[in-house]
Amino acid sequence: MNNKYSIVTLASHSALQILKGAKDENFSTILVSTPDRVSFYQHFPFIDKIITIPQWSDFVTIEPQLKKENAVVIPHGSFVAHLGIENNKKLTLPYFGNKAVLDWEADRDKQSDWLKQANINTPEEYSDFSQIKYPVIVKTHGADGGSGYFYAKNLKDLEEKLKTIPKDKKYVIQQYVIGVNLYIHYFYSPLTKQIEILGMDRRYETNVDSLGRIPAQNQQELTIDPSFTVVGNTPVVLRESMMPEAYAMGERVVAASQKLISPKGLFGPFCLETIITPDLKFHIIEISCRIVAGTNIHINGSPYSDLLYSEPMSTGRRIAREINLADKSNQMDLIFD
Amino acid sequence: MNNKYSIVTLASHSALQILKGAKDENFSTILVSTPDRVSFYQHFPFIDKIITIPQWSDFVTIEPQLKKENAVVIPHGSFVAHLGIENNKKLTLPYFGNKAVLDWEADRDKQSDWLKQANINTPEEYSDFSQIKYPVIVKTHGADGGSGYFYAKNLKDLEEKLKTIPKDKKYVIQQYVIGVNLYIHYFYSPLTKQIEILGMDRRYETNVDSLGRIPAQNQQELTIDPSFTVVGNTPVVLRESMMPEAYAMGERVVAASQKLISPKGLFGPFCLETIITPDLKFHIIEISCRIVAGTNIHINGSPYSDLLYSEPMSTGRRIAREINLADKSNQMDLIFD
Amino acid sequence: MNNKYSIVTLASHSALQILKGAKDENFSTILVSTPDRVSFYQHFPFIDKIITIPQWSDFVTIEPQLKKENAVVIPHGSFVAHLGIENNKKLTLPYFGNKAVLDWEADRDKQSDWLKQANINTPEEYSDFSQIKYPVIVKTHGADGGSGYFYAKNLKDLEEKLKTIPKDKKYVIQQYVIGVNLYIHYFYSPLTKQIEILGMDRRYETNVDSLGRIPAQNQQELTIDPSFTVVGNTPVVLRESMMPEAYAMGERVVAASQKLISPKGLFGPFCLETIITPDLKFHIIEISCRIVAGTNIHINGSPYSDLLYSEPMSTGRRIAREINLADKSNQMDLIFD
Repeated sequence: MNNKYSIVTLASHSALQILKGAKDENFSTILVSTPDRVSFYQHFPFIDKIITIPQWSDFVTIEPQLKKENAVVIPHGSFVAHLGIENNKKLTLPYFGNKAVLDWEADRDKQSDWLKQANINTPEEYSDFSQIKYPVIVKTHGADGGSGYFYAKNLKDLEEKLKTIPKDKKYVIQQYVIGVNLYIHYFYSPLTKQIEILGMDRRYETNVDSLGRIPAQNQQELTIDPSFTVVGNTPVVLRESMMPEAYAMGERVVAASQKLISPKGLFGPFCLETIITPDLKFHIIEISCRIVAGTNIHINGSPYSDLLYSEPMSTGRRIAREINLADKSNQMDLIFD
Repeated sequence: MNNKYSIVTLASHSALQILKGAKDENFSTILVSTPDRVSFYQHFPFIDKIITIPQWSDFVTIEPQLKKENAVVIPHGSFVAHLGIENNKKLTLPYFGNKAVLDWEADRDKQSDWLKQANINTPEEYSDFSQIKYPVIVKTHGADGGSGYFYAKNLKDLEEKLKTIPKDKKYVIQQYVIGVNLYIHYFYSPLTKQIEILGMDRRYETNVDSLGRIPAQNQQELTIDPSFTVVGNTPVVLRESMMPEAYAMGERVVAASQKLISPKGLFGPFCLETIITPDLKFHIIEISCRIVAGTNIHINGSPYSDLLYSEPMSTGRRIAREINLADKSNQMDLIFD
Repeated sequence: MNNKYSIVTLASHSALQILKGAKDENFSTILVSTPDRVSFYQHFPFIDKIITIPQWSDFVTIEPQLKKENAVVIPHGSFVAHLGIENNKKLTLPYFGNKAVLDWEADRDKQSDWLKQANINTPEEYSDFSQIKYPVIVKTHGADGGSGYFYAKNLKDLEEKLKTIPKDKKYVIQQYVIGVNLYIHYFYSPLTKQIEILGMDRRYETNVDSLGRIPAQNQQELTIDPSFTVVGNTPVVLRESMMPEAYAMGERVVAASQKLISPKGLFGPFCLETIITPDLKFHIIEISCRIVAGTNIHINGSPYSDLLYSEPMSTGRRIAREINLADKSNQMDLIFD
């Protein structure tokens, strides 16, 4: 039992995994939830306490209460989505991860610079309309689980769809790479200075992942608009001969971050979202600088975590273990912001 | 070791899972098989005894022999498919589940009423041809693993295909919802009065799940007729923010059943077969009121069962555990019919 | 600890699984790697020693060094791909498996005869162009992970694409069966004389597994050429009523091999690569007579291995266990060539 700290997170995204992992590593656990979700989360015995707040943005108001419990925050995708970057930065509780990375993740120009400095292969992004090779995918800024993305097959199609975006919303127009998608779950430990691959997934997106089941001739009559809203994840393993490059990409991303986002750079869990083309090349369409929901398929470990650990090691549990390691070696400042 | 009861099932569907689970919960196990399958099932050390019958319908004839073994029956999809509802009702051995539910599952009108009373969102069903919005999927009554289902893109297509259905066969014409499918495996315990989610799957259907691999232009030349015969299942996890509604749907279905199918209602394993649209809504296309074959992917537990249990808890094992719990607390009448 | 033998393999394909399994069965482990992959494989604690060679074909030059370590070779797909069949045959170290099978696997005519003698249902193969029913898939000889395969929709298409194949390259023209694919992982033990099914997978192929996500109308504008390069694998379970035939096919393949490839025939891991059509028939498109990369999804066991073993039993571990069993019973000659 770690008697010093309790672990707290918001009732969404990967909260079950994070708190289960925390309990497996002997922490006491706190969930902060809006009222509508409390009855659901009460089913799980590894959640020691549930604190109810009227709405997500009220998380900041309970910091004093959480401090009494010696709580440390493990953020996930909903922290930025529900609180906003600025409110994340204002949190005064110990926050797992480097808050300076939030800006680099959210701003696609910065993200693009970072990935290029890390020698990561990314799809072409277009600012000049005359340069575009179709099809393209248009992505609005900010983490919103794939909804709001759209796809255009030619200039006319693109122009029509761009009209539907609010004027103050930033977006990028990206080459649509034709290949299969695969999301790699990394963990970088500032304590061991090692990259670990803890799992992989494919996203399950509605409605694009249902299109293939509709015969081509019917699709045309229906003129379905493809959408990319993520509703789940499925497991996958990668061809072993591509694993060395998968690891190396993770190492390069971390190394570049230590120069750009000094001094700590990126650490903890992150994800490279790849498309693999028939020439066996990775095309990285996005980096997520935190635990991704795809790790939820590995609550009891993955083929990759089983190569590294003798217990089932989810990403949530790996974070909790890192906190225990940092605590024992008096290096909590290395992993909290 | 539970010395009082042995667990028996038919050699099909999820028999391996059920008997493995029974053995893990210390029951002795009996498989009833047609002769052609015996050599296959002999490979598995957790099956204590195999009784051979000439054909499935002969199951009723061996009830006296099974009674000597103090056998209790765990039914699965093949019980209704191979014996028929009436023969299931006539069985005199203790039968896990509520036989009254069989009628509500098999009759699509009753099923539809039940789901509506439970405030479950179901696709439009059409009786008036002039009201139909295409495409539609046509489903004949009775559990037949997705074969016999078909798909129509317009009135002409529908009329032609309806001619192929035998005149005495009932069917429904259902709106074809465009979204991804996801099957949720529930367990309701009348002892703990709790809903548990033990896993999820996607069905793997031939040939619709192969269509997407054939380029659109070739599909059109081939004029392939889509079919929905289930041949397997693959794992998936659900976006966590949709989990509270997934649980709540299970609770509402059970609550409604306790009114409609009194006094016991639905208990034990069941499955809601959902399609999820880009607005993050569940559309329930069917309820299965028993263990579904999709649970076979979780013979060694699932990400969801691992949140609730410290051992690998398949649905088959969960049933056996329920029997042990009922036995110890002298409540066997609560879970057997 | 098995003090007599160490297990060696090449740094590719399923090396992680093989050496992890070997370590779990208490062998010491050696990896032979080209320089570019060493830093990757150094992350894994179950690899006791890494020997670097300038290129794969230099494996033969380190046999003397490996003999001093009492090494036995576990071959995987990269052995034939990187060394060639003749160099595999020349290896003097104990080699798990029957080298005589290599010719039967590589030569499609021999493979076809073998499968027919085993009463395995295979797709039509055409030598007379006037007999062809389209669409067809054209496969060049030799294991190359699905790249180089192509697909033709009519005679004109076929003739054009055949021109792109080098003249000295053999190929087969195979009926393209429309159904879902499923790969079955078998293990045949010459010690127990039993077939085991240890897992199943679906291949994840670029770009064909991404086509379904592109709306039909866009596919046509793009005129994408489908390719079948394998980059990963995903888990699947099979409808239980088809399992008896899945087992029986494995038994027939082994029995036929014992006549054709006497005296030992096929043993150890192998894979039948099936397509399942809506009539619930298996169509076997290929046999792989060795560990397949799809087993990498089951590094910590599968729903099927969990039915047979109380520990997580990957195919890699199963091989190591077979070596231990043979060693203890002085039957090493039964499983090594």
